[in-house]
Formats: sequence, C-alpha cells, structure tokens
Amino acid sequence: MTVRFATLGAGRIGQVHAGAIASVPGATLVAVADPVAAAAAHVRDTFGAELRSIDAIAASRDVDAVVICTPTDTHADLIERLVTAGKAVFCEKPVDLSLARVKACLAHVDAAKGTLMVGFQRRFDPDFNALKSAIDAGRIGAVEMVTLTSRDPGAPPVDYIKRSGGIFRDMTIHDFDVARWLLGEEVAHVQAAASVLTDPAIGAAGDFDSANVILTTASGKHCTITNTRRATYGYDQRIEVHGSLGSVSAHNTHTARIEIADADGYHRPPLLDFFMSRYTAAYAAEIAAFVHCVNTGAPTPTTGHDGMMALALAEAALLSVAEGRRVAMSELV
Amino acid sequence: MTVRFATLGAGRIGQVHAGAIASVPGATLVAVADPVAAAAAHVRDTFGAELRSIDAIAASRDVDAVVICTPTDTHADLIERLVTAGKAVFCEKPVDLSLARVKACLAHVDAAKGTLMVGFQRRFDPDFNALKSAIDAGRIGAVEMVTLTSRDPGAPPVDYIKRSGGIFRDMTIHDFDVARWLLGEEVAHVQAAASVLTDPAIGAAGDFDSANVILTTASGKHCTITNTRRATYGYDQRIEVHGSLGSVSAHNTHTARIEIADADGYHRPPLLDFFMSRYTAAYAAEIAAFVHCVNTGAPTPTTGHDGMMALALAEAALLSVAEGRRVAMSELV
Amino acid sequence: MTVRFATLGAGRIGQVHAGAIASVPGATLVAVADPVAAAAAHVRDTFGAELRSIDAIAASRDVDAVVICTPTDTHADLIERLVTAGKAVFCEKPVDLSLARVKACLAHVDAAKGTLMVGFQRRFDPDFNALKSAIDAGRIGAVEMVTLTSRDPGAPPVDYIKRSGGIFRDMTIHDFDVARWLLGEEVAHVQAAASVLTDPAIGAAGDFDSANVILTTASGKHCTITNTRRATYGYDQRIEVHGSLGSVSAHNTHTARIEIADADGYHRPPLLDFFMSRYTAAYAAEIAAFVHCVNTGAPTPTTGHDGMMALALAEAALLSVAEGRRVAMSELV
Amino acid sequence: MTVRFATLGAGRIGQVHAGAIASVPGATLVAVADPVAAAAAHVRDTFGAELRSIDAIAASRDVDAVVICTPTDTHADLIERLVTAGKAVFCEKPVDLSLARVKACLAHVDAAKGTLMVGFQRRFDPDFNALKSAIDAGRIGAVEMVTLTSRDPGAPPVDYIKRSGGIFRDMTIHDFDVARWLLGEEVAHVQAAASVLTDPAIGAAGDFDSANVILTTASGKHCTITNTRRATYGYDQRIEVHGSLGSVSAHNTHTARIEIADADGYHRPPLLDFFMSRYTAAYAAEIAAFVHCVNTGAPTPTTGHDGMMALALAEAALLSVAEGRRVAMSELV
Repeated sequence: MTVRFATLGAGRIGQVHAGAIASVPGATLVAVADPVAAAAAHVRDTFGAELRSIDAIAASRDVDAVVICTPTDTHADLIERLVTAGKAVFCEKPVDLSLARVKACLAHVDAAKGTLMVGFQRRFDPDFNALKSAIDAGRIGAVEMVTLTSRDPGAPPVDYIKRSGGIFRDMTIHDFDVARWLLGEEVAHVQAAASVLTDPAIGAAGDFDSANVILTTASGKHCTITNTRRATYGYDQRIEVHGSLGSVSAHNTHTARIEIADADGYHRPPLLDFFMSRYTAAYAAEIAAFVHCVNTGAPTPTTGHDGMMALALAEAALLSVAEGRRVAMSELV
Repeated sequence: MTVRFATLGAGRIGQVHAGAIASVPGATLVAVADPVAAAAAHVRDTFGAELRSIDAIAASRDVDAVVICTPTDTHADLIERLVTAGKAVFCEKPVDLSLARVKACLAHVDAAKGTLMVGFQRRFDPDFNALKSAIDAGRIGAVEMVTLTSRDPGAPPVDYIKRSGGIFRDMTIHDFDVARWLLGEEVAHVQAAASVLTDPAIGAAGDFDSANVILTTASGKHCTITNTRRATYGYDQRIEVHGSLGSVSAHNTHTARIEIADADGYHRPPLLDFFMSRYTAAYAAEIAAFVHCVNTGAPTPTTGHDGMMALALAEAALLSVAEGRRVAMSELV
Repeated sequence: MTVRFATLGAGRIGQVHAGAIASVPGATLVAVADPVAAAAAHVRDTFGAELRSIDAIAASRDVDAVVICTPTDTHADLIERLVTAGKAVFCEKPVDLSLARVKACLAHVDAAKGTLMVGFQRRFDPDFNALKSAIDAGRIGAVEMVTLTSRDPGAPPVDYIKRSGGIFRDMTIHDFDVARWLLGEEVAHVQAAASVLTDPAIGAAGDFDSANVILTTASGKHCTITNTRRATYGYDQRIEVHGSLGSVSAHNTHTARIEIADADGYHRPPLLDFFMSRYTAAYAAEIAAFVHCVNTGAPTPTTGHDGMMALALAEAALLSVAEGRRVAMSELV
Repeated sequence: MTVRFATLGAGRIGQVHAGAIASVPGATLVAVADPVAAAAAHVRDTFGAELRSIDAIAASRDVDAVVICTPTDTHADLIERLVTAGKAVFCEKPVDLSLARVKACLAHVDAAKGTLMVGFQRRFDPDFNALKSAIDAGRIGAVEMVTLTSRDPGAPPVDYIKRSGGIFRDMTIHDFDVARWLLGEEVAHVQAAASVLTDPAIGAAGDFDSANVILTTASGKHCTITNTRRATYGYDQRIEVHGSLGSVSAHNTHTARIEIADADGYHRPPLLDFFMSRYTAAYAAEIAAFVHCVNTGAPTPTTGHDGMMALALAEAALLSVAEGRRVAMSELV
C-alpha cells in the first residue's frame, strides 16, 4: 500500500522531508500546507503536491500520514489534532519546549492509540547505523563509555537562538537522543558545563555556545557530549563507543575523498558544512522507516517518549549548569 | 527544455542509466527497447517508460536522445543508425572492439554532424572530479606521473571474458581514458605486462587477469596502471597524480565510515564491491552532463574520439605484451 | 659542563631514567641507590654507575643532580633532604598524596632556593609538542576546548591500586597536568564522574576504573578527560584542542605503520601497549630538559607547583564525585 | 662475545654506521679510517674510536669486522683485501658499478670463505618488517603484485649524479632489492621507462630523474616501481603487496602524528625528508643483524649475491630504456 502524505510547513526542513517522501518507494506526497505562499508553491511545483489548509488536511480522506515541520510552538497542538483525526504523525523534534506540555501531548496520543514518530534523523544515518550494528553484534562487548563530538559549523541567527529553548534543547537534544540509543540503559544523572566563547551576542540572548555534558546510567556507564556552535572546518559529527572488548568510532564526512601533499604537508578538504547535506541519506531513511511503520503497524523507531526523554535530559543539563550540581533524572521524569 | 530519452537495453547497466535519467532534472524517459521482455518490462514499470522496438525509437518524434546499453557488437551500427535518424546518442564504451570499425563509425558521425557521447563514467565521479579540480587549480604544479590502481572485486564469468575483447579492452580501457584525462597530453608509447594469476580458466580463454602498464607522453610524463580481476577487499579504485609542486590522491570508498579497535588492532569495513554502487553518483552526473550538452549544443565531455583513443591504447598494450616491446601510438592512430 | 647524576630507585621507571641519562649528551650517571641489591646491580652493570647509599649520595661532591624514583611516600622527605644538600632534584610525580604535605615540601624547596623538576613526561612527547607548537603558532586561534582521551591497556595489580591514591591521583594526574599546559589558564571548577566497570576488585579496593571529568577555567574554556583502566587495543593517548580558528589533534602510536586489507576489511595493528615504550622519546627529552636547566640555571619546565596543582585537581575531582557537585579550585588551593 | 669494529669512511653514512655500532649491544667501535682528518676525528671524539690507516686496520688483531663506507669505486678492492685479511665485511651498496667486477669480487669472497653483508637497510625497517611478517604469516595468501613508491625529497648534486651510475644503480637499486625480497621469486623480465622532468641538468649529465619499472617473474608475478628525485612533501617510501587473499601496505612516516583542521580543511605535517632520519631504526637493526651473524656464523641476511642481483636489475632497466624492449634477466646473469 502506498502511504499518502501531507506536509505541514514548506521551509527548509519541510522541503527535505518532501524530497524524502518523493524518493521513498511506497510513499507519495498528496498535499502541502504553509502560510507562506511561495514556500508552499515551491513544494507543490517540485513534488507535485496540492496546496491545502491544515484544516483540509486533517479532514482529507486521501491523506494517511502527516509530517509536521511547522514552528516548535505549534507542534503539540498539531500532533493532538492530527492524531485525533486519525492521521499517522511524524513530527520534527522537539514536541514542545515545555516538558509538562510534552507529557500532556503524549498522554493524548496514547489515549487516542495514535501513531507518532519524532524526528531524530541521526539514528538513521548509514555510518551511525553501521556503528550501532557493530555494537549489537557484540564487536566491542559491553558498552561502557560513549563519546559524542557534535560541533556546528556556525551559530544560527540570534533571533532563532532566542526562540530555540537554548543550546541544550536545540542542539544537544540530538546528542541526548543518540546517547540513550547507544547506552542501552536510561540515564540516571546529568552533569553539565556551558560557556559563551564564540559570540557574546549569544550570551546576551541568555544562551551558551559551548557545552560539555557527562551522563551516567544507574550501572555506571558514561556518556560525554562535547558541543560548540562554531567549527571552522565544517559540521563535526563523531561518535566513539568504548566497550569491554574494544571500541568503535564513526568518522566525519569530508566534501571529497582526496588528499593533497605539498611542501606544507598533507591536506584533505573540510567537512560537509550543513546538516541537510550531511544527513541527506539519514532523512530519506527516516521517512522510509516511518512509511514502513504506517504500512505494517510496527511501533515507530523513535517515539514521543524518546522526544520527551531527550528534552528532559536538556532540562537536567540546564539545571546542572545553573545549580552547579549533579542532577538526578528522577527529579524530572 | 526537457530532453526525452529512450534506452536500448534494459540489463544491468541499462537500468542504471534509466534510473539516472529519472533522477536528473530536465530529462525524462519515454521509451525502452529490449528483446528480453522481462527486463524491458522492469524498466517500464519502474520508470514509467513505454516499450518500443528499436525501429520505432529511431522513428519516434518524441525521442530526442538515445542511450545505447546493448551488447558491444551492436554499438557501432546503432550509433550510425540513430545519428542518421537525428538522435543525440550516448553509447556505453566501447564503440567497437575493432579499431578500424570505430574509426569508420566516428567518420559517419562526423559526416552527419551528430552528437555522440561515449560512457566513461569515472570522469564524473565526485572524488575524481575534486582531484582533477585540484590539478587544474595548480595545486600540484605540472603533472609528471599518474598512478592508477584499479582492481575488480572478482572476475566476470568466463563466457563474458571470451566476448569482452580481453582485460585491456574491457577493464583497463577505463584507466586508459582516465590516464588521458589526467596527463593532459597524448600518450606516445605503451609498455605492458600481463599474467594469469587468479584463475587458469581466464588464461584458457586467451585472456589475462593481472596487468601492469606504463604509458609515456612525448614530453616524458608517465602513467602506470595496475589491474587485477580479484581484490578480496572490494572494488579498489585509486588515483594518485604526482606533480612538480606536490601530489594529489583520490581514496577508496568503504561500505561505512567506521572503525573498530579491539585486541587484534584497528578494523575498517571493506570497500564497496560493485561498480554500480561505487559509481552511482558518477552515472547520474554523466547523464546530467549529456542532458546539458543536448540542451545547449555544447560538445560532449567524453567523445567518440576519446572512445577510440582508449581502445587504441588497449591494442597497443596487447601488442606490447605479445611482442615484448615498447609500442609507439603512431603505429596505431 | 657534564651534569653528574645519581638515581634513587632502580625499579622500572628508575631504569628508564638511568637509560635516559646515559643517552643524553652532557649527562653522566655516577651513582645509584636501591635497597633491592639485584635492581641496583642491574643499573650499575648496564650503565656503569657506582652503588651508594642515599646518605652517601646526599654527601657526594661528585653528584650534581638526583633523580628520585623511590616509592611515593618517600618523595617529599627525599626532596627536602637533597635540596638541602645542594642537589638539583628531579622527582617522579607525585610529590606526595597529601596536598598539605606537598605544600610544605614546596615551601622548603623555595626557602632553600632549590631546583626541583617534577616528572610529567607527556609534556615532552614529540607529537604532543608538535600539537602545542601549532597552538602557540596561532594555528587554531584562541583555545576553547581541550579533549583528552587517556586509556590504559590494563589495570595495575590491586595491591598497587590500594597504595596509589586512586585513579585521579595515579592516572588522571597526567591528564590534569596536560590540561593545565594546554588550556593556558588555571582551572576554576571541576566536575567529575567515576564508576567501576572493568573489575569489581578495583571497587572493593575503594577505587574507580572509569572516569570522566570536566574542567572549566574562569573565562569559560573547557577540558574534558576520559579515562579507563582497560583498552583492549593498547595504550590510548589522544589529545584534541578546539579553538576559534580550528582544531588540532595528536593521534595514537600503533605498533607498526602497516595496514592489511582482506575480505573482512582493512586492518591496522593495535597501539603500543606500555607507557614506557609509548613515551620512550618523551622520557629522554624530559631528562635532557632537566640537564639543560641544571646547566643553565633556567627554571624547570615542570615545577613543584605543577605537581601540586595536578594533585589539587585530583582532590577536587574526588570531592566532586563524592558530593555530586561542581568543586571550585579556590576551596583547595 | 663483543664484535670489535673498524669503519672505513667517516662521512655521512659512515657516521650513521658508527652510531649504530655504538648503540648495538655486543658491538664496539675500535678504529676508524678516513683521509679527511676532520671527519675521522669527529668519529673518534664522538664514539671513542682510534684513528688508524686502512692498512693498520687490515692488520689489526683487535678488529673482527669492518664496515666499508668509502666511495663506491673502492668497495670491491677493499672487500677482497679485508676478507683475505680474515675480517667480516659489511659494505654499503653497491659492491661496484660494473656487474663484471662485482662477479669477480664475489668469487674472491667465496673462495676465501669470507663473510660479506651488503647494506640494504630497507629490509631492516620496522614497518617493512611488519609488512613482510604479515606476508610470511599468510595474511594475504600468495603474493601476486608488489607496488613500490619511492620518491626522494630532492635530487643530489649533479656532481654526485655523474659518479652515481645513474638513477637505476643509485636510487632504484634499493627498490630492486626490496622487490626481490618481497616477490619471493627471481625476476625474469624487466621493462622500464625513464624521463627527465625535474631538472634538465640531470639530463645533461646523462641521467634521468623519473622512472617507472615493471618486473615480471617466471610465474607471472609483477612488481612496479615508481621513482622520482623530487617529492615536495618529503621522502616518500611506500610498499603495497597484493595477494590472493588480500593486500598489505606500509605507510609513510610523517614528522609528527598530528592533524590540524581549519577553514581550509585538514592538514598533517609533511614526511621525514632525509633517508638517515627515515631509516634510523633500520640502520641500527641492520648492524645488529650483522653483529649477530659475525657472532654466530649465521649467513648474512643481505649477501653479495643480493648486491649483484640488484645491480643486474639496474642494468636490465637501463637496457630496456635504451632499446625499448623487455629485457630477460638471463641475458645478464
């Protein structure tokens, strides 16, 4: 059965998902809604979708699934509404910036027995999947320490930062999700440090641009996360997992697999410098996984609960920075 | 203007090109011809093309360009016929196994002022392009030595080998083309050595499975080519170009960018082991380049002449092996 | 002028230093003291030194400098005694496991205007020095984040662990010193987490085998340290420093620079698995630096103060683990 | 038993060998001879050797072994004289530039049942040894193709080149020896190409600066050798051996194991740029192997025959370039 999709939001990430839907066998894009007419028209023209209002989409009998790419503060309401309307919902992270609101929304989805997948595309990256498969195959024994290095090529505009919920909810949230995925055990305690090192305007906006976090599980496994908003050499996305029998690492993606040697030494090109080019394959695989779930009724691989837990870790990190202490997750969830 | 395509041949490489046409903006697949009904139907169903005979395609007013993926011994005739019919032609290498036949065919195309592009997809590989751009940007100064390492993951069936024209015409031909592309100067002399090391059946079929070639230009630049039909670790495709100011290398493509460390050491996955997965992006870029030429009238980046020269280098290599001497290209072209 | 040395302690590290003295121009080994006759005789026979008592060495007119490689609990007393006797002193870390005792000892050295160098050999490793030089040359701009990965190939015997002062004072202490060296600013706050993951006997001895630490300076620079007592693939010693203009990394040292490719992929040998082989060049360079200081009166590059600060960081880390809070260095020094 | 050495020649390579003798257990340097007084004095002062004439050394009862580092045209005479005098002889390559003279000299050594080792230090390089061990352990199955990349950082002075016997006898000779070592089978045929690309003065001196060679054994194994006198990025010394089960490579040695990432990409330092620093460990291991042979009577690992065969391969390569043909080794030896 072909899953018939509508997308809400035709901005940058909305276009990525529309493209993914178009390229995945078994999925078709039926409709798109966006108050910005030009953006909506672009998706219509590129992917052959119809323009509809959100109301119309909720009521459309020819729409099975909806991808939500609207601003964060609309996510929870839309999820509730669309699930009630019987649509399978894929929502970009986060469900909401408020943990309480997320909990309420998930309760609504559960009560409606709705299908909800929250977008954490890194779990679908081919290299990260190869790393996870190596762990699952027992190649490194028991997982002991996860090290996540996650550096953006540059900070978003300060206006965006002000609405983003801060570095932990906006950027580290992806690492929190990857940490939970790889640790194989819930996090018990969070310790975090954060600074403003790259741009004082970020500090003036009440946020940080540089952060380090230590997560500890009940059995004592650790995960460290290193974040900064600015890496001159591109979008730095590395994972290393250390276990009882060995270690496995996922390396970065350079713009080309070449190396130049000259009198100054050996030179390779910088990294891909944009999350959409770095994670192109991941976004497509993510939508393909969602299509599979809608078709088979299988549980979604990244759930509302995953979204909530990543957000709770972000809140714990903020609390740790503010109060200078190790925060127990039991305080929050 | 959208270029309307037909493909002749719906086998392995025919499907690759059909997929490339489908994915390239400005191109559309109208028709497919293949005497094997199932293969043709597969392309029809997957890419929405109509089934037509070659005759019908030659006569079709809604077909601007034809991609020839039929057996080698049909290439030259088809090129002549389709060019005469006013179609732009993309033909998989080689034009023919006989140098005389190739020359005659190209004369026909010239007389008809036809458009012909010969498929040498490696020139369109993103990594090899980055290497070429570095050379063109002067990063290594004057090119002095090109080193091509080209190893197949495994030999094709002996039946294929018998019809293939031998390792130099079937496999090394790609390296000969890359050599000409990178040397920036025609080859003047060829020295070659060839052996049967991996499978005596290949020798029994009159062919070799292992070969090394030295090409020399008039000004004394060198290119060495190392070929074998069997590399256990995948499809080994490396280029290194040494120049007066430095050197540039294009590295291999592994199945994943991960590395495992354990008590035995550090382990990375093997290489992609199939030319179609290794060169997926190259095949798409190649068709995109052809579409651009058909649309703009620009000369094709890989021409019938390129096809002829690569074949002539293969003949020279065979002659060098047979007679134990350095062969001058002036003997052949 | 040739600096005439005596070494106290002829065990493993004592032999390393005796060998370093023998290999460094401008240094000569005159005498060795060790209560274990066989060990002392081995150094005498290998390097041509005389056997003397510690008393005799302190009184020897033909001894300019003394290297202390005795058990930790003797260090502070020996330093005081030898400095008083007018000897230049090189002492293996740590000066003492008690911060108070270290402070008293350093006060004694200062009062005597003595020469004291504390052994932190990593600062003398050629690769780490190349990394430091790149930073000092401005290649990465302002230092923002230091990441130290330091994993032992295996835990020492539990008996040793019991006397060692624990993982932070015994193992992380080297990373604390490297952190101070690279941050270029004193650490203001310490957050640490520690677990027992590799061997319950280590926990039973009151110690940890796995630890992660975040250090923060007053201006907000961070250093993260990842330690474990067991890395199956060898002695894992990596540094990465991230700055405003870029990043610099020092890589590991494998047992050989070879790589094997086969049907399972690409394989490199494991790392050197012993601190003495990994840091052979560093130990020699460290003694050479000490000889230079003794000869020229230049201040020693790693001082008693450095030893004290690294120990204070270890105490802060322990306090952070115990109390679940961010510890200010101003509480300790 | 300690082997008592004299060295003839106290130039650059003579000092390397004197240093190696000094550092190898079981060897001691007794005497040095060099007509250049300052050079001889330097070895005397650095390593504690006595100055003696060659005559005196030949007659010395306290000299067991002699290392010959004098100009090439003296090697054969000195070997004959010292072997006759009962000394074990280590001679730097080549024994002579004339194949006939080498044969006569080796006949003399055989008749005298003398001990002769010819210096091919690459066989003693730790990385190349690890590669050879992997082959011998069966890790790549049967050897099929050896690829040697050997590029000097810069050409020697033209005066040296004029006396050197040309690139094949002076530079490629090391690769010829490595080829024989790794192929495990004598070379049957030689094909070579050579050019002047880096400096016309080298051509004016009758030599080449760039060369490529294909060696073929009777069973069809190949070795390709790529040489140039100028690599801007350092002393490029790589080996790759391809076999039926896989491949093994030995990588280059950089000046430091660091990498810098910045807005231009990733940068590693250049290679060591001098054969003496690149092969320091190899020279020491080579002398240690010779000491072992002198002490035990074991056959030397690199013999006069090895020296002759490498020279014969050089002659064959020259002949191949001159006559444009594949040269059979049976024409020469």
